[in-house]
Amino acid sequence: MTNGHGQHPEQSYAGETGDSIEYADQRRGYGIHPWKLTRSGLLPDDVAASETLFTLSNGHFGMRGSLEEGEPRVVPGTYINGFYEQRPLPHAESGYGFPESGETVVNVTDGKLIRLFVGDSPFDLRYGTTHSHERALDLRTGTLDRSTEWTSPNGQSVRVTSRRLVSFVHRSLAAIEYEVEALDDNVYLAIYSDLLANEQNATASSDPRDAAVLDRPLKSEDSGARGQQAVLLHRTRRSKLRMAAGMDHVLEVPQGAETTIEAGGDLARYTVTAQLPKGSKLRMIKYLSYGWSHRRSTPALRDQVEAALAVGKLIGWDELLEKQRAYLDEFWQHADVEIDGDPGLQQAIRVSMFHVLQCSARAEGQGLGAKGLSGIGYDGHTFWDADLFALPMLTYTKPSAARDHLLWRRNTLPEARARAAELGLAGAAFPWRTITGKECSGYWPAGTAAFHVNSAVANATARYVAATGDREFDAGAGTELLTETARLWMSLGHFDGAFHIDGVTGPDEYTAIVDDNLYTNVMAQANLTEAADACERNPGTASELRVTAEEIAEWRKAAAAMAIPYDEKLGVHAQSEDFTKRDEWDFEDTADEFYPLLLHYPYFQIYRKQVIKQADLALAMQLRGDLFTPEQKARNFAYYEARTVRDSSLSAATQAVLAAETGHLDLAYDYWAEVALVDLGDLHGNVDDGLHIASMGGSWQVAACGFGGMRDHGGVISFAPRLPHALDRLRFRIRSEDRVVEVQVTRTGQEQTATYRLIEGESFATTHHGQPVELSGSDAVELAVPAVPQVEPVTQPARREPTRRRPQR
Amino acid sequence: MTNGHGQHPEQSYAGETGDSIEYADQRRGYGIHPWKLTRSGLLPDDVAASETLFTLSNGHFGMRGSLEEGEPRVVPGTYINGFYEQRPLPHAESGYGFPESGETVVNVTDGKLIRLFVGDSPFDLRYGTTHSHERALDLRTGTLDRSTEWTSPNGQSVRVTSRRLVSFVHRSLAAIEYEVEALDDNVYLAIYSDLLANEQNATASSDPRDAAVLDRPLKSEDSGARGQQAVLLHRTRRSKLRMAAGMDHVLEVPQGAETTIEAGGDLARYTVTAQLPKGSKLRMIKYLSYGWSHRRSTPALRDQVEAALAVGKLIGWDELLEKQRAYLDEFWQHADVEIDGDPGLQQAIRVSMFHVLQCSARAEGQGLGAKGLSGIGYDGHTFWDADLFALPMLTYTKPSAARDHLLWRRNTLPEARARAAELGLAGAAFPWRTITGKECSGYWPAGTAAFHVNSAVANATARYVAATGDREFDAGAGTELLTETARLWMSLGHFDGAFHIDGVTGPDEYTAIVDDNLYTNVMAQANLTEAADACERNPGTASELRVTAEEIAEWRKAAAAMAIPYDEKLGVHAQSEDFTKRDEWDFEDTADEFYPLLLHYPYFQIYRKQVIKQADLALAMQLRGDLFTPEQKARNFAYYEARTVRDSSLSAATQAVLAAETGHLDLAYDYWAEVALVDLGDLHGNVDDGLHIASMGGSWQVAACGFGGMRDHGGVISFAPRLPHALDRLRFRIRSEDRVVEVQVTRTGQEQTATYRLIEGESFATTHHGQPVELSGSDAVELAVPAVPQVEPVTQPARREPTRRRPQR
Repeated sequence: MTNGHGQHPEQSYAGETGDSIEYADQRRGYGIHPWKLTRSGLLPDDVAASETLFTLSNGHFGMRGSLEEGEPRVVPGTYINGFYEQRPLPHAESGYGFPESGETVVNVTDGKLIRLFVGDSPFDLRYGTTHSHERALDLRTGTLDRSTEWTSPNGQSVRVTSRRLVSFVHRSLAAIEYEVEALDDNVYLAIYSDLLANEQNATASSDPRDAAVLDRPLKSEDSGARGQQAVLLHRTRRSKLRMAAGMDHVLEVPQGAETTIEAGGDLARYTVTAQLPKGSKLRMIKYLSYGWSHRRSTPALRDQVEAALAVGKLIGWDELLEKQRAYLDEFWQHADVEIDGDPGLQQAIRVSMFHVLQCSARAEGQGLGAKGLSGIGYDGHTFWDADLFALPMLTYTKPSAARDHLLWRRNTLPEARARAAELGLAGAAFPWRTITGKECSGYWPAGTAAFHVNSAVANATARYVAATGDREFDAGAGTELLTETARLWMSLGHFDGAFHIDGVTGPDEYTAIVDDNLYTNVMAQANLTEAADACERNPGTASELRVTAEEIAEWRKAAAAMAIPYDEKLGVHAQSEDFTKRDEWDFEDTADEFYPLLLHYPYFQIYRKQVIKQADLALAMQLRGDLFTPEQKARNFAYYEARTVRDSSLSAATQAVLAAETGHLDLAYDYWAEVALVDLGDLHGNVDDGLHIASMGGSWQVAACGFGGMRDHGGVISFAPRLPHALDRLRFRIRSEDRVVEVQVTRTGQEQTATYRLIEGESFATTHHGQPVELSGSDAVELAVPAVPQVEPVTQPARREPTRRRPQR
Repeated sequence: MTNGHGQHPEQSYAGETGDSIEYADQRRGYGIHPWKLTRSGLLPDDVAASETLFTLSNGHFGMRGSLEEGEPRVVPGTYINGFYEQRPLPHAESGYGFPESGETVVNVTDGKLIRLFVGDSPFDLRYGTTHSHERALDLRTGTLDRSTEWTSPNGQSVRVTSRRLVSFVHRSLAAIEYEVEALDDNVYLAIYSDLLANEQNATASSDPRDAAVLDRPLKSEDSGARGQQAVLLHRTRRSKLRMAAGMDHVLEVPQGAETTIEAGGDLARYTVTAQLPKGSKLRMIKYLSYGWSHRRSTPALRDQVEAALAVGKLIGWDELLEKQRAYLDEFWQHADVEIDGDPGLQQAIRVSMFHVLQCSARAEGQGLGAKGLSGIGYDGHTFWDADLFALPMLTYTKPSAARDHLLWRRNTLPEARARAAELGLAGAAFPWRTITGKECSGYWPAGTAAFHVNSAVANATARYVAATGDREFDAGAGTELLTETARLWMSLGHFDGAFHIDGVTGPDEYTAIVDDNLYTNVMAQANLTEAADACERNPGTASELRVTAEEIAEWRKAAAAMAIPYDEKLGVHAQSEDFTKRDEWDFEDTADEFYPLLLHYPYFQIYRKQVIKQADLALAMQLRGDLFTPEQKARNFAYYEARTVRDSSLSAATQAVLAAETGHLDLAYDYWAEVALVDLGDLHGNVDDGLHIASMGGSWQVAACGFGGMRDHGGVISFAPRLPHALDRLRFRIRSEDRVVEVQVTRTGQEQTATYRLIEGESFATTHHGQPVELSGSDAVELAVPAVPQVEPVTQPARREPTRRRPQR
């Protein structure tokens, strides 16, 4: 660990833990710190990855962690949630209902740029001499901090420090504190603080998971500059969305400086030139503001951005910092997950939770994208995993963010209803991938056919309502979402004795267009029941939605009759009808380099064999665990574990949860590390394109649902905590209505003890490994953790076992 | 019927049958004639259809029936078999093994053009006064004949007659006899006889079944003109294929004429100007020659085309005509199907057979396209139906053409082997659609997954070998084709007790990616057995192909263990595993205008319901009829008939054959008319894009296999003739090795009698409704046809019953 430099008191990266643990999957240059993600030096190969990992965002807009000085950079993206451009979706052979246009997130005007010239030389770490270069994403201050000591090619030395934030409290504001200290005499400086639209793009890729790269998506509409402030206004060419970016500055220079401001077309620039005596500092605060609209006029948008800048300046840098810290203190106070025994994992879990918070906190009216606002991977689209992997964490730690996403789903109901109608279905068919709510999937067997996205919305809705007791939401958006998704299932399925849902694709994308996917069926079953309950709870809303008693009865009838495929011969549930009769994949003969399989084998081969991309039945056993006996879970887990290749980052979290439940705690621990390090360790090789937000949400799920054993079947919360050998302690807290509940499990020798405590609220009833627990006041309840039952070892496909996590203390 | 005009003795269209029967599905303007397709007058709506129906072709190249004068026209196409251009195949989301480029037939240099100017006026039937305009495709002379009497807008009258042929005997030659007779005094004429490349295209369509329209696909490479001859040489831009078109002329004008010749770029022109006294005629013979190559040089190709023109001129028009007639006389002598009782159907069957012959007769090294050489529908691609619907007719009537197609399949084995390897399979995977042998399908669930195309090649191979006794083919291409297709099945299927083939698409494209499609399985079963037999017959070839005794044993083992899905509860075979458990389609609520379903419903809806696009299990019952009892056939036919919507032109022929076999003779008759009239009646609304060659081959199959009851299971030919009520007599002839066998069935009151006779050959053994029949010498064997067994009526989906064919005598 090389994180001690101590030159900047606010940015002391010296490991607070004092140790120097390293892991095989720890990336070079990154340091371990309980509350920071730190990195020393500049590695050319890591530029794009660090841009992703150091992303700052508040859910409304996000800025990748590129350097203020602009270079070196790979993808210096800035993204506004919901701001997209249309692009054609070409089909080699078109078909009815194939979407003809897609949506792609746009790299909007870059406001991070503060180009620095020292004497004649651009400040660029690839030239001159870098004495130190330290960066840190601080999870408590909510800032991206850097400090660089550098000597220019012509011998002048400076120390550049910067601190950047995207405000959680003021959602259209970002700010950068930028300081240059002269380490030599009479250093001449020039600073160009820019707004730059239509930045050059990185080159396109042929990986189908990547995004469509748009060339110069923005058309200049207006610009203006006065004093230290400038604004650029642009519009997208096809989607016709308008955006404004503004900047304002506060400058402190001991001996004064020359400044100019200008704006036009794609560039606005505030120029500062100054001469610094040795030891003196130039300090500049750059305020940034973003706004967009599909209907507001150019002047209105311009005024909006300028007003935000004025507010920002009035509040001032220090107060912005304080508010940011206070916001995060409040979050961590009730959300933090603590573990003892693995500082690297501790860091990764907090980084993960921080990014999930960042991409959702202030989304307000927009969805939660698969990459958050950290990159253009997956075109910036939102998928089902937002609802099932990110929302559980938010529901129990930051419910307002979960609510925002669900309200966005509700707001896209017109598109989802239209899509259902286009498909000949009732209710609402939520899109597989989208920005605005319109289906943007170009490959229907793994898009349109994956109707389980509707059950994800319903599941998240029901969970949110149960966890928060948000009656207003329940009576409005909640009941509407549950009703329209329930209607979809009724039109999609049919009774034949049992209720069958044929021709769909479940979460496992290596098996497509199947009958009675168990996951889809049991999730639809819950959806139908929850819709019936919601309508009965909210008869007024139900009546507005024209739900009749007969309709509710049909929902309950279908739920009761739901087909649940089971292979009697093997004694396991079938992922879908006849799945277990399929040919086996030849894992022994599939070399490492043939993963992910989808890039090396045709779909038809993958679909017809027993090879599983990602947890499917396992996810059903997590979310509908009350339907399975412990013995069934154990047998099913072993069967599917042996056939799951984890080619999706969505898999390991669920496998961890089920591994923990079925007594494979060390396997669960290995999976946890895989989940939490998916981006820090770049385990899928594409961190450059953005964060895996679902996996990051999964990190929390493994804590709470895996080692915490938390379940919320039917809205009733239960726990069954248990630690793996590597950990000595786990503590997490969840919100439930007006309460905050703390669960802690500790190890003493072979014994494990769980402690339950109310942090807020008056009383709470739950269970501990099935045993009732009543919490009231601040009294802790301490209970022994039952011994792990004897379990048969499980295996993964050849060469697909997770990396064993072995800290090298 | 308005086909008597009598002005041109050679083109007397006067109905030889003397009656005037009309049918609801008879198209306006077309007349009924036993040996001609005639049409009177010019209907703007029918221009494209008549261009298709009047196509002349010899399998090497084809010319649509556009008028010599060039206008009016919609698609004046000329196509050379195998001559294509590449085009990109875009995918909204790409995937491993998705083809990235496609192939599209090219409209090559048009040589039909003979533009005529009468005085100042272009000869164009949309202007001036048309007194008569008669055209006829003559099925015995193999010519397209026309006669037009017309007065120009400025009052000068002419009679234009023309006769056009594409030579069956000289495969690179076409010729046009063009006569203009002055009906007024001193008519000034100008004639532009052209070669024109890169003709303007019709507008593109959004129907996925249509072709990609290429804009200016040809690049000029060279041109030359001398005397009355001119040549244009072009090359495609991407596929880099070179082609040459040449023309030469012989002119007869009573008082002489001025002529010039010129050539350059995309146009070559022979100009004739003359003055004709009343009653005199200008007569011109235009010889046309086409050649192409992917490796021959420009000079070589030019010489080739000029040599062909020289030969053509030497032979002369009259001899070309005679040879054409002789070729067709020989064909009809052994191939004709005669029926009494339905002259319209009689005509349609002969037109169909004529077009199948035209598109295959001289293909020599190229495949038999779905549209022949009559249009750009389906991009000019060859599909499985060539092997299964067109080849049976050719095998039994023109075996050399069947052989040509199969040799093309053999020549594309390198591409098919490469495709199999790309897909992770053994042997050869023949493409779903192609020109060169490379897969060009852009939608894999109905392309790549339809592996039954391989069994179609194998089936055609085995049939050809059995029917012809062609030992050389059997020992070479035949064994190779059967072996490589058999190997594909072994790698595609797996043993699990039974041998299963999962994740494939059968002929019914409304059901995709299923397990154990019965058709695919039983066809694969035959394929495996035939491959084993062929290798045992031809041990030398087998050894060259590295076939071992163990491999053959595995083939036989898989064939013996083949899974054949059967629904015990319903007592019917299942089209695929669990098919009969699927939800039913709501036919009652599907209005007429929602057909074809694929243009109005998403695939996912169609795939998961019991709705069948085209005969699938029925085709299995035809081709593998020996696997089913008569009771099973009856029950299966009834079950699937009620769920088959016939959205494919490939369906009705098979339904007709099975309807006839199961005793529904009048239904079979209705289907026969639908099959035979698919283009003449434009029943699918897309005759403009080209002929439905498979359906045309199906017309013959309904005669031979439907009402003739002919089967060739295991290479053994049997008959079970039976007439529907509407017909009094059916006669057809088939070749079997060195024999020609005639089967005739006649009706006398309620009794039907079959007569079997050898036209060529010494002896032949067959069966009549199961009863052994031995033919020898020219002795006819007359046998009573057993009475039709009592059958339950069958039904079709609501509003999808075939039109009842009721002649209005």
